[in-house]
Amino acid sequence: MKNKVVTIVGLGLIGGSIARVIKPFVKKLYAIDNDKGIIKFAIEQCIIDSAPKNPLGESDIVILCIYPNASLDFINDNIDNFKKDAILTDTVGIKTPIMQLYNKLKPHFTYIGAHPMAGKEVSGFINSEKQLFDGANFIITPSDDATDEQISVVEKLAFAMGCDIVIRTTVDEHDRIIAYTSQLPHIIATAMCDTPLLVKHRNFTGGSFEDVTRVAKINENLWSELFLGNKQHISEQIKIFTASLEKIEKAIINDDKKTLIQIMRKVRLDKEMVDNADPKG
Amino acid sequence: MKNKVVTIVGLGLIGGSIARVIKPFVKKLYAIDNDKGIIKFAIEQCIIDSAPKNPLGESDIVILCIYPNASLDFINDNIDNFKKDAILTDTVGIKTPIMQLYNKLKPHFTYIGAHPMAGKEVSGFINSEKQLFDGANFIITPSDDATDEQISVVEKLAFAMGCDIVIRTTVDEHDRIIAYTSQLPHIIATAMCDTPLLVKHRNFTGGSFEDVTRVAKINENLWSELFLGNKQHISEQIKIFTASLEKIEKAIINDDKKTLIQIMRKVRLDKEMVDNADPKG
Repeated sequence: MKNKVVTIVGLGLIGGSIARVIKPFVKKLYAIDNDKGIIKFAIEQCIIDSAPKNPLGESDIVILCIYPNASLDFINDNIDNFKKDAILTDTVGIKTPIMQLYNKLKPHFTYIGAHPMAGKEVSGFINSEKQLFDGANFIITPSDDATDEQISVVEKLAFAMGCDIVIRTTVDEHDRIIAYTSQLPHIIATAMCDTPLLVKHRNFTGGSFEDVTRVAKINENLWSELFLGNKQHISEQIKIFTASLEKIEKAIINDDKKTLIQIMRKVRLDKEMVDNADPKG
Repeated sequence: MKNKVVTIVGLGLIGGSIARVIKPFVKKLYAIDNDKGIIKFAIEQCIIDSAPKNPLGESDIVILCIYPNASLDFINDNIDNFKKDAILTDTVGIKTPIMQLYNKLKPHFTYIGAHPMAGKEVSGFINSEKQLFDGANFIITPSDDATDEQISVVEKLAFAMGCDIVIRTTVDEHDRIIAYTSQLPHIIATAMCDTPLLVKHRNFTGGSFEDVTRVAKINENLWSELFLGNKQHISEQIKIFTASLEKIEKAIINDDKKTLIQIMRKVRLDKEMVDNADPKG
């Protein structure tokens, strides 16, 4: 990527963290952000090279690090500003809406969706950090017209960011899977904290409660867009989860220790297998 | 506690961790465990002083660190072996069953229930550690006949273990609260992992999934006893949780962004308040 000019759109938690880590790997790093104070600070701290007026015209790679709906607006508003054969990628947590827009517009650049599986329960450039993606999974969802060479550029970007595993899939498959692995945990954490008991019993908690509820400190503006953009898959996952919950509750109510142990043992063995197989340990 | 002889019953994760931390604070530390190899190792490593044949007869404090049902059996089997006016305490995650037995037996020692809110998703003496209780909450559920002096001995024990906050409550209240703060998170983590998707999508997970599912690596023998011993409170908590989950799902399905944002904002603010108020940060 040493010969690529890159523009990051949005210097928030994700865009800021990407900027902090990839600058040594690229030719020029530009950024676009509504907050001119952040742009000024990022230039002063050498986190980006500069912020020219029309960076898209000379950018080989453009990385959208803004909200789902803002990403659609940005593409619509800047469709003619992109360099020919540029790669547009992003970090949006759902992949179908941008791909639908891309397939409709058929622009002169190539869209390769991306989703680094990392984040924090706080937001903004102030919380961005170089190590945010260390060891993370990175999902790529290329458009049908992306070449292997273009895809490999985005893969290199992922490894430059510090990600460990890069997985390629389709936008449909991504959005179906992410409903289970990312959106369901956020919804569960929110539902668990959606009770006055949270405040009332705060001195009766231990590690299990802290962990299950960590992401309840949720960015409601971002996540409401992510949830509404993936409603069918989320609804399906909530059904699967609720069925398991009911099965466990029934075993408890019926004093059915055998079933209860059977469910928990199977889950424990699967979880141990997954954790041990995971290179993140 | 410098003048107290203490016996720990069960050198597993919890008993082993208590032994490792309290020895300097007591006169003599004994232990009982079916595994003679662990007893031998603990003596050799000076984690306990010794393991006499009948330690209960000279023990001022006895700490049960075994499973709920095994605790009931131990009390029944050893009722005549306790020293007069000894304090019996424990670390069992539900408090009603032992208190019911104690009130029925009316023995010559005093029961003060305890529940250090700490643990790990692994078990056994091999995983025990001195720091396990550092900064943890510690709940005390004294019997009606416990004196202030006796209760203060158990409080001192909690602080010696490294706990930060000691809270006194009744066994009923404890079991009602713990259904929300400890048992529900374990059930949720289990239900989330009770699907083939866990293994299938293991490379599509991020921090939120890892955290929400951490305690799915559950000790099925211990937790089935805890769940079955507190079924009514657990059922009530699952109902409250499921109602929230349904409310969130409905807002997503109906494209009701306003309600969705409202729920998440309230939860986030409450969670931030609780986390900031918490001395553990």
